[in-house]
Amino acid sequence: MTDAPQFVAPLIADLVGDAALAAHFSTDAEIAAMLRFEKALADAQASCGMIAPAAARVIADACDAFAPDLESLAAGATRDGVVVPDLVKQLRTAVGAAHGGQVHLGATSQDVIDTSLTLRLKEIASDIEARLRGLCDALAALAERDGGKGLMGHTRMQRARPITAAQKIEAWRAPLVRHLVRFDEMRPRLFVLQLGGAVGDRADLGAQAQAVADHMAQALGLASTPRARHAQRDATVEFGQWLALVCGSLGKLGADVALMAQNEVAEVTLASGGGSSAMPEKNNPVKAEILVALARQAATLAGGLHHALVHENERSGAAWTLEWLLLPPLVVATGAALRNARALIGDLSFVQSMPPFP
Amino acid sequence: MTDAPQFVAPLIADLVGDAALAAHFSTDAEIAAMLRFEKALADAQASCGMIAPAAARVIADACDAFAPDLESLAAGATRDGVVVPDLVKQLRTAVGAAHGGQVHLGATSQDVIDTSLTLRLKEIASDIEARLRGLCDALAALAERDGGKGLMGHTRMQRARPITAAQKIEAWRAPLVRHLVRFDEMRPRLFVLQLGGAVGDRADLGAQAQAVADHMAQALGLASTPRARHAQRDATVEFGQWLALVCGSLGKLGADVALMAQNEVAEVTLASGGGSSAMPEKNNPVKAEILVALARQAATLAGGLHHALVHENERSGAAWTLEWLLLPPLVVATGAALRNARALIGDLSFVQSMPPFP
Amino acid sequence: MTDAPQFVAPLIADLVGDAALAAHFSTDAEIAAMLRFEKALADAQASCGMIAPAAARVIADACDAFAPDLESLAAGATRDGVVVPDLVKQLRTAVGAAHGGQVHLGATSQDVIDTSLTLRLKEIASDIEARLRGLCDALAALAERDGGKGLMGHTRMQRARPITAAQKIEAWRAPLVRHLVRFDEMRPRLFVLQLGGAVGDRADLGAQAQAVADHMAQALGLASTPRARHAQRDATVEFGQWLALVCGSLGKLGADVALMAQNEVAEVTLASGGGSSAMPEKNNPVKAEILVALARQAATLAGGLHHALVHENERSGAAWTLEWLLLPPLVVATGAALRNARALIGDLSFVQSMPPFP
Amino acid sequence: MTDAPQFVAPLIADLVGDAALAAHFSTDAEIAAMLRFEKALADAQASCGMIAPAAARVIADACDAFAPDLESLAAGATRDGVVVPDLVKQLRTAVGAAHGGQVHLGATSQDVIDTSLTLRLKEIASDIEARLRGLCDALAALAERDGGKGLMGHTRMQRARPITAAQKIEAWRAPLVRHLVRFDEMRPRLFVLQLGGAVGDRADLGAQAQAVADHMAQALGLASTPRARHAQRDATVEFGQWLALVCGSLGKLGADVALMAQNEVAEVTLASGGGSSAMPEKNNPVKAEILVALARQAATLAGGLHHALVHENERSGAAWTLEWLLLPPLVVATGAALRNARALIGDLSFVQSMPPFP
Repeated sequence: MTDAPQFVAPLIADLVGDAALAAHFSTDAEIAAMLRFEKALADAQASCGMIAPAAARVIADACDAFAPDLESLAAGATRDGVVVPDLVKQLRTAVGAAHGGQVHLGATSQDVIDTSLTLRLKEIASDIEARLRGLCDALAALAERDGGKGLMGHTRMQRARPITAAQKIEAWRAPLVRHLVRFDEMRPRLFVLQLGGAVGDRADLGAQAQAVADHMAQALGLASTPRARHAQRDATVEFGQWLALVCGSLGKLGADVALMAQNEVAEVTLASGGGSSAMPEKNNPVKAEILVALARQAATLAGGLHHALVHENERSGAAWTLEWLLLPPLVVATGAALRNARALIGDLSFVQSMPPFP
Repeated sequence: MTDAPQFVAPLIADLVGDAALAAHFSTDAEIAAMLRFEKALADAQASCGMIAPAAARVIADACDAFAPDLESLAAGATRDGVVVPDLVKQLRTAVGAAHGGQVHLGATSQDVIDTSLTLRLKEIASDIEARLRGLCDALAALAERDGGKGLMGHTRMQRARPITAAQKIEAWRAPLVRHLVRFDEMRPRLFVLQLGGAVGDRADLGAQAQAVADHMAQALGLASTPRARHAQRDATVEFGQWLALVCGSLGKLGADVALMAQNEVAEVTLASGGGSSAMPEKNNPVKAEILVALARQAATLAGGLHHALVHENERSGAAWTLEWLLLPPLVVATGAALRNARALIGDLSFVQSMPPFP
Repeated sequence: MTDAPQFVAPLIADLVGDAALAAHFSTDAEIAAMLRFEKALADAQASCGMIAPAAARVIADACDAFAPDLESLAAGATRDGVVVPDLVKQLRTAVGAAHGGQVHLGATSQDVIDTSLTLRLKEIASDIEARLRGLCDALAALAERDGGKGLMGHTRMQRARPITAAQKIEAWRAPLVRHLVRFDEMRPRLFVLQLGGAVGDRADLGAQAQAVADHMAQALGLASTPRARHAQRDATVEFGQWLALVCGSLGKLGADVALMAQNEVAEVTLASGGGSSAMPEKNNPVKAEILVALARQAATLAGGLHHALVHENERSGAAWTLEWLLLPPLVVATGAALRNARALIGDLSFVQSMPPFP
Repeated sequence: MTDAPQFVAPLIADLVGDAALAAHFSTDAEIAAMLRFEKALADAQASCGMIAPAAARVIADACDAFAPDLESLAAGATRDGVVVPDLVKQLRTAVGAAHGGQVHLGATSQDVIDTSLTLRLKEIASDIEARLRGLCDALAALAERDGGKGLMGHTRMQRARPITAAQKIEAWRAPLVRHLVRFDEMRPRLFVLQLGGAVGDRADLGAQAQAVADHMAQALGLASTPRARHAQRDATVEFGQWLALVCGSLGKLGADVALMAQNEVAEVTLASGGGSSAMPEKNNPVKAEILVALARQAATLAGGLHHALVHENERSGAAWTLEWLLLPPLVVATGAALRNARALIGDLSFVQSMPPFP
């Protein structure tokens, strides 16, 4: 993958980007997922008798061997607003005259693009979920080790009453556990096949429409719905809000650590902080600050994503494109936040500042 | 209730505000809910043996008869950032010297304010849920009446393929049905008693803390949790995102209607549109436009609300106050959107522009 | 004025609202400014020979004596999306049959509403400007008194190198001084008469259109432009961004004070902080926290306001209404921030924590 | 430049990205600008007698020949939150033991990074300004050619009164002309040398601080200020708002064109629209829709940028990093919007739908 995007300046991509999650938005990954769609479509149509089994085999082989003309794709995307018309044209040529016309049969660009995104969101979400679980475990281990230490509780930026490190850690961990529950709840809404054709009613798929959809969904590991959701963007937007909830909760962790790491407060120490070009003796709570920055970036992007719900008619070029502009950096921000949080917890030791409770 | 706020300019409050939902943020409503908390606290403490039954009775009577000194409350809120210290002081005076000290025992301002908000959000959500159900019913009835009419489907602002009114209506209704499911999922996270005391650990409630919490939660119709969630703001922020999802879906409805009501398109007629001071013959799709405006307002407010997750330490005056600034107008926007949507559906008839499908 | 809106819950209106600025959005203030428009229009048309001087006099008298039927206005606003058609109807009745038809001649709702807003924004901006100047003076006085005290500079939340209080104060004051310069620059773009008629081309005003506009602008203290700016919303949106710049700069002041007021840092003392219902001994930096909350509220609202630029055609009900929803609370937030900042500076004394520089 | 970031997925980078502007955020461009800073610093210090002329010459030569170890830089950025400490270390090694200690003398990371950004923003702004002027010219030429054609004016999405194409074009062009004025006003605030040292007071530059700053500013083509503006972020945030104003105005242009290009309205034709994979006969107004999407993306990012004003203490890692996350994609969105707008205007012809005015 030579074109992995990072959505942040390359010099700070290891700091505030996330190569693993960003890779799902590379050209390779996008096209591979689109080809999975076309292959599954042909296969489903063959098994429903809409196209010949031989056609499906040739299409499958062409998808497996496909090497796109990237320059042509980029030009196509710029002209059409979507990459699919040019991709389908290339794929039909690769399939050959005999069966080329059976590629993409009864489907439309949005079917390919939305399903391709969903297939990748499934991998993305699985990675995020694993990181969330790992972070919850790391927090539980930290509580096990340091939880009994006495700290000063602070309310409204003033010393209040003693608490324990366990309480602090619980305030970080409990929302993450709830985020995992939320994710399970939204899963059936999110991982859904999009298949609707030109205006979303599957008209060109005829009587076999639902059977084709069911077959494809099964093959792709997605849920099948009785209708396409072309202009119904709630699942995507909901997922974006969930990402921002995760980032926001990690922003609270970051804000807390940055405050506790103040020299004057010194309720935590950090094994590896950042140095300064002017003051090499400093131990800056860089990862904690980054968590706050990423939380605010995610809040920003998620707020904008709500506007994508105002998706006019049977397909909105404007509202749909807005999703493409806001969701990928939001995914990357979440990945960066989870990675930084995990590293921060690894660095962190509580320093008892108050006698422990009886 | 003489002080019902509207969160919008009064001249347009009937257009873009919602008197019924805004009323839950009036001084009367806020204080009534706070007094419910104090009364339930005393009652729970009496039943757990922490205070005398007589004290609880006197406190309950004082709550029932309480007439706050509003000027003093406002001055207190301005001084303390929260109204509770002054309210408790007034309430203790009303209770009298014998039992005044047992008012608000072991609780803190945040317990009162968060629980008061939750009690009102429960009523608010119940109203919103009922309106959502009513709107779903109205859409179902519209589909029953007009669903068979043929329309032109539009993608990317261009004529595409024929559809039916039923498909259009389904694209409006299906997300609302999912919003009802989402609401049911978040309900157990949202309607939770807040009781934590000074720094959230219930230290001042001693061994009876959980029993007091359970008793109070039962009395107030809320869930009881093993710990307070003072600095964990995910439920409130999640609810705000849900409100914006509802508004965004209604914004799509509004955008669709405004486009179909264009004179050149004329796929719907509106029984009552707005007039113009210069062109009295016009029939402006005001309610449809308002839905778009409210969707963008809600998107804006919900995006800002994500920042409230970065809630430092055991209580953040800054992040907590931000919730108070953004959530009430978001509730009101949702009410206004639901009311306008319902009225719009009442006004709307589809006009067949294409032959119906075979 | 019995209907002054606050745009925040009434219990905290003295804390995070601003009665003086909110009053400009009351029904009384809105209608008074609208009547100024109608009166100036008639007067200008009389002096250009479009209507009889007697008609202008009768209209002026009717405006001066006008007592609107508020219920009818609210119903009109809800029906028409704007209050003006009903207002003009009432005003024509008040003027009487002889000259009623000459009320609002050649104008449209947007002319009245935008000019009414501009007239009030002029008063609002003048108040904000005066408060900004007062705050700059207060900061200069604080620097005069406390500037020489030595503090510890902090970077990335860590102790860095000694600075002086003067440097801290300068970082608060210098942006405010630049905001005053910015305001002067935008003034000629902002305080402009809106007069365009039905579709913004002044067609119904005929050959006298520019003369009428010039006369009105002169009478109302606004600039006259060669064309109306109906669908050009950049001046309003720019003003909103400026308000958020002011609030953001005050948010930095608030964040700094809250950090310096930490018990562990103690580089400032506050004469009057907030108390707690559980911990009466605390001295919470309430005003400082409020400044942070208001900065984030203003950032939120200003971001949403940018969407109002996407104002389709010759008048967008959706985009225009969005301005009405976001600008008033943004004005009020700015007023609240300036008031809290001024009070905070009055409360604040620096505590020398480092030896002063040689 | 092998690492040019696009901030959008590569498949759609030619559609919604801008390679020319994104290139200013490549590693090459960032480091080149940082080296300009270090070179100018050494040169200024030599001319003020702080370091030997020979040292400045060696430093200049090392900067010219410098080939960074990128892996080490990335690791440094991740550790320190800024790339500068590692860069300075590498540069000192390249300069050699004799003069290495005189590299970066009295400066801090923020001086390098902020000035590097400013140097690139100057080139960015110059490109944007040229595109804005070119677009204004194209609009003037369009008005010259098509301005006399009669169209129907639309208000609140309904047919209103006839207008001319000239009026439509004027509503697009006039705000752009004002944006050029705004840019000229902000220029002296934006293009300013940042030089402050560890905590912004230039303490380590001693008595020569201002002379060094003046010399550097002169060499770099920036303004010199009496003090550093480390924690004063208003100029950067103001610039971001200006970018969003530009994008928002172009969003209005896009929304208008998409509405006029509707088949039912047909008041414009587009020479090259987008095709569909299901409906090859369509002529989708892709560029117009993209302008709306970019306007909303820019609104989103600019709203988030306001939060960067809440920049605590003498340097905030959190608030500063937020700028790095939001400003580059905002720049790229503006470039994409200007490019799409120019191409759209090239494609567009008005179709007379109403008799021209007498």
